[in-house]
Amino acid sequence: MDQNRFAHGGDIYSFERRFHQTPVDFSANINPLGMPEEAVEAYRQAEQNLIRYPEPVCGTLIKELAAFECLGGSFFLCGNGASDLIYRLMFAAKPKKALLMAPTFSEYERALRAIEAEIDFHMLREEDGFALTEKILPDIAGHDVLVICNPNNPTGTLLGEKLLKQILDECFKQGCLLCIDECFLDFAAERISLKRLFKEGAPIASQLIILKAFTKTFAMPGLRLGYCMTSNRELLHRMVFCGPCWNVSVPALACGAAALQDKGFLRRTRSFLKTERQRLIDGVTELGATVYGSKANYVFFRYPDEELYQKLCARGFLIRDCSNFRGLGTGYYRIAVRTEADNLALLAAMKQIAEENG
Amino acid sequence: MDQNRFAHGGDIYSFERRFHQTPVDFSANINPLGMPEEAVEAYRQAEQNLIRYPEPVCGTLIKELAAFECLGGSFFLCGNGASDLIYRLMFAAKPKKALLMAPTFSEYERALRAIEAEIDFHMLREEDGFALTEKILPDIAGHDVLVICNPNNPTGTLLGEKLLKQILDECFKQGCLLCIDECFLDFAAERISLKRLFKEGAPIASQLIILKAFTKTFAMPGLRLGYCMTSNRELLHRMVFCGPCWNVSVPALACGAAALQDKGFLRRTRSFLKTERQRLIDGVTELGATVYGSKANYVFFRYPDEELYQKLCARGFLIRDCSNFRGLGTGYYRIAVRTEADNLALLAAMKQIAEENG
Repeated sequence: MDQNRFAHGGDIYSFERRFHQTPVDFSANINPLGMPEEAVEAYRQAEQNLIRYPEPVCGTLIKELAAFECLGGSFFLCGNGASDLIYRLMFAAKPKKALLMAPTFSEYERALRAIEAEIDFHMLREEDGFALTEKILPDIAGHDVLVICNPNNPTGTLLGEKLLKQILDECFKQGCLLCIDECFLDFAAERISLKRLFKEGAPIASQLIILKAFTKTFAMPGLRLGYCMTSNRELLHRMVFCGPCWNVSVPALACGAAALQDKGFLRRTRSFLKTERQRLIDGVTELGATVYGSKANYVFFRYPDEELYQKLCARGFLIRDCSNFRGLGTGYYRIAVRTEADNLALLAAMKQIAEENG
Repeated sequence: MDQNRFAHGGDIYSFERRFHQTPVDFSANINPLGMPEEAVEAYRQAEQNLIRYPEPVCGTLIKELAAFECLGGSFFLCGNGASDLIYRLMFAAKPKKALLMAPTFSEYERALRAIEAEIDFHMLREEDGFALTEKILPDIAGHDVLVICNPNNPTGTLLGEKLLKQILDECFKQGCLLCIDECFLDFAAERISLKRLFKEGAPIASQLIILKAFTKTFAMPGLRLGYCMTSNRELLHRMVFCGPCWNVSVPALACGAAALQDKGFLRRTRSFLKTERQRLIDGVTELGATVYGSKANYVFFRYPDEELYQKLCARGFLIRDCSNFRGLGTGYYRIAVRTEADNLALLAAMKQIAEENG
C-alpha cells in the first residue's frame, strides 16, 4: 500500500526532528480558540480517575451529546476519534464496492483497503471549483457505500441541502449506505445536515450515518474523541462489536462532556473564523493564489510556487502540501485559520517568499 | 450476540448508579501500587500537548518499550489498549477457524465473532486446577489462530516454558498463528515468555505474536495503552492498516513512556504482591474457598456461597462474579490483590457474611 498517500497534516514531530524547532502549525485544522476552559479543567480533574476503566458505553457523554445535537441518545456511538468509527463502519457494513470523492480525506480509502473493498473515485473538477455536483447521482448505482466529507477536506466546499437530499434519495433507491463526515461542519456559517431525518424516523434515514468529532471542533486532537449518529440500529449494533469495548479514554470522556457545557463556544468560534478566514483568503489571493471552497476553518488554494511548502518550513511554518491527495498534484495547499498574529505572520512570510521569487 | 457473555469487571459506574457510592473495586485487576509517580507527572505535563495530534507511529514510546522488553523497536505496534490490538490482529489475520481456551478473557471471542470466525473451545478442567496441559496439543490442527492468556484471566494459571514451546512448535507445524496475551505476566514471580525467539530470528517465531498492556501493569486503565510484539513483519504491517492512524492518545503516549522510567516499579510491585496475594489466598481458603492458579495480581476461587457477589456489593465491595465466563458457572469468583487495608477489610466482610450464613 502506498503509505505516502495516507500521510496527514499535523505531523509536527517530523518537523521538530528535521528543523529542531516547533513549527507554527497551519497543517492541522484545529479550532484556533483552543480547548474550552471547561475541558482543560476536566482534564485536570480526570487525573484521579485514570485508575478506573472508562464507562463502558460512554453513557454520560452520550447524554450530553444528545442534548448538543438535539437527538435521542439511542442514535449515538462514540469512538477513539472519528477515524475509529470509519474503521468500525467499514468492518461492520463490509461494502464490496465503495464510491469516494477525490480529493478527500484519505482515511476512508485506507479503511476500505483494509477490508479489500473495490473503490471507485468520483473526481471533483477544478472547473467546478472542486464542488460536488449533480454529476455524482448517476455514479451511485452499483455501490454499497458512498462517503461524503461535508465540508470536504481539503477543499472546504460545502454541499447544499437540495443536493444532499438528492444524494440520499438516490442512495436509498440503490441500496447504498451514505456516510457523511461532518467533522468540520460546526465551523461553517451554514450548517447543513440531514441529521433531523433520524428524529423524523424517515425510512431513507436507514441508509444514512453521520460522523463527527471533538478533535477539530474543540481543539483536542491529542485526546481522540469522535462520534457517529444513525437511526440504523442494526448497523450501530454491529459497529459496537467491530472494535474493543473500552475504546474511549477517561480523559477524552471527561473533556468531551465538559466541552459541550460552554454553550457560546461555537458561536464565538464562527464569529472569529469569519474575520480571520477572510483575512487569509484575501491575503493569499492578493499574492496570486486561486482559492476554492474554504467554508470551514481552513483555506484551500492553488499557488504558482510549487516549493511553497519547503520555503515556509524553512521559515518555521508548517502548511499542508496537498500533492499526496488523490486527484490533486503539486501546487495545491491547505492552511488552517489560526490567530490573527499567526495569520499575519504567515501572509508576511508568503509575501517575502513571493518577492524573493521575483 | 449474548452481550452478557462479554461484560467485564471494573464497571464501577453501574455500581455507583445502583448503590450511590463508590465501591472498593476488587473486580478490576489493576496494580495495587497505583500509577508510577513519573506517569502522573507526565499526565500533567501532557495538558499542553492535547492540541497536538499524537505522534503517528508512537516512535518515542516504542524506543522506550524496546529497551524495556530488550527487543528491537521493529517488533512493536502500540494500540488503544491491548484490546485494540486483539481486533487489529483478527481483522489482519482473518482466521477462518480459531481455538480458544475456556474460561478465558472474553474479548478474543468477541473479536473473532466480529469477523465471523468459527471458534472451537478447549475446555480447561477443574480437576487440572484449570491449568492448560498437553491435552491442547492434538486440538491445534485445523485452526488458523490459537489465543492463550498467560497467566490466564480469570484463573491466574501460568504455563511452563516446556509446554509453551511445545504449543508453538505444534502451531508452526500446523500453520496456526499463536497469540499469547501476557497482560498479567509482569505480576508473576516467574515471567516465562517466548519473546526472546523474536530476537533470535527463530523461524517458528513467525507464527507468534505477544500482547501486553500498560493498563494493569502500570495501573492506567483509563488511558488505554497496549502493545504487541512479533517478528512477523507482514502481519504487523497489515495490523497497522487495520485500524486508524492515530489510535493512541497524547496522554497515553506520555504516561507510558514515563512509567517505564521507574526501573524499580515492577520489582516493588512483585514484592508487594507476594505478601498480599498470599494473605488473600490464605484468608479465603480458611473461609472454605478452593483457590486455583492465582499466579498474577488476582486470586481465583470456587466458593460455596453463590450469593457472595451480591452480599459483598451490599457492603461496598465489588468483586468479579465469574459466572458469565464460558466454561464456568455460579460460585466462581476473582478478586484483585489490593492494599493491605483493603484486603483485610474484604476478608473481614467475607468472614462476617460466612458467620451470618451460619
